[in-house]
Amino acid sequence: MSSPDTRTRLLDAALSVVRARGYTATGVADLCAAAGVSKGAFFHHFESKEALAVAAAEHWSATTGALFAAAPYHAHEDPLDRFLGYLDFRRALLRGAPAEFTCFAGTTVQETFDTSPAIRAACERCIVDHAAVVAKDIALARERHAPDAPWSAEGLALHTQAVLQGAFVLAKASGGPDVAIASVDHLKRYVELLFNRSATPISPQTESP
Amino acid sequence: MSSPDTRTRLLDAALSVVRARGYTATGVADLCAAAGVSKGAFFHHFESKEALAVAAAEHWSATTGALFAAAPYHAHEDPLDRFLGYLDFRRALLRGAPAEFTCFAGTTVQETFDTSPAIRAACERCIVDHAAVVAKDIALARERHAPDAPWSAEGLALHTQAVLQGAFVLAKASGGPDVAIASVDHLKRYVELLFNRSATPISPQTESP
Repeated sequence: MSSPDTRTRLLDAALSVVRARGYTATGVADLCAAAGVSKGAFFHHFESKEALAVAAAEHWSATTGALFAAAPYHAHEDPLDRFLGYLDFRRALLRGAPAEFTCFAGTTVQETFDTSPAIRAACERCIVDHAAVVAKDIALARERHAPDAPWSAEGLALHTQAVLQGAFVLAKASGGPDVAIASVDHLKRYVELLFNRSATPISPQTESP
Repeated sequence: MSSPDTRTRLLDAALSVVRARGYTATGVADLCAAAGVSKGAFFHHFESKEALAVAAAEHWSATTGALFAAAPYHAHEDPLDRFLGYLDFRRALLRGAPAEFTCFAGTTVQETFDTSPAIRAACERCIVDHAAVVAKDIALARERHAPDAPWSAEGLALHTQAVLQGAFVLAKASGGPDVAIASVDHLKRYVELLFNRSATPISPQTESP
């Protein structure tokens, strides 16, 4: 196996094992076992578990960034439809077990924000850089539909990420995605109200967790 | 020292140490050191760190429940004013370092949801029981001001908790409370829009994190 493959397998293992167990509970041995590589290979690529976590946050940004870039909502002409389509896309990703749809950066920073400045900064970049991509469509939608709105595109994009991160926490607490789906429905209704779009009805099965 | 005091000191230590470092990174020795008690005393009161975490979630519910029960927003006659006052109260708690204003249950469940059913259930109770208290005022506000609304009081109360939990994650990622305050402002504006109240202007320093 070539060296880049080993590195990517370790990064992929970090994303899945940390999302299931948390960062601190994931040992180097767990990552090596999940990736099928030796400890020697691990330390050839990463000087520490912390260095791997920083690289995994960048890998998470790249992986999810490609997923969002390829999503169908970009085809809408109206930037508000693109933003609402982004929320529908995020909603559609909420299925299966929480470890499968929750966020590596949000999980990791929850544990490490006070003990690892490098991991905290890498997770912040993950979240802020993704919010900045979403903010582009929000800014265009604001310009077209709500130019005098008292909120900023950047602020609304960060709020969108806060709702998603909190929806993940409640999904983990409840053991399934329903409560997270209901929160995304509330977020979408908020956006529709901000832009005076007619509200989406909430279906009973997503509203009562 | 009497036995109840030792137990309470261990529970208080769990709340502060886990909020700063996360659950897995907090060892029994750390808790004993923070509480000023021996390991023997720890295992006299709790059979395991997991048992302490379950009790700490209950202690967190009791402590924060008393804080909210004593808060001034309950004096409003209109249940919508009480709910908006609750949001203002939550906003006012967002100050200082993230470890001081974030949530024991949200932090702990983020790490343990898949590995400890007992801790997951205890954290879920924490969040759901608090949401149920908030939902009482929302239900009365809905009945008085928006009886035909397509959302339920319970669903909006859970969404409120999701926004707060996500605001905590973003505060940890950014290293301070500003981004969390901005999210609570968005949540308050959402509630005002749902109830056709005039919107609160967002001050510039809280909108741009």
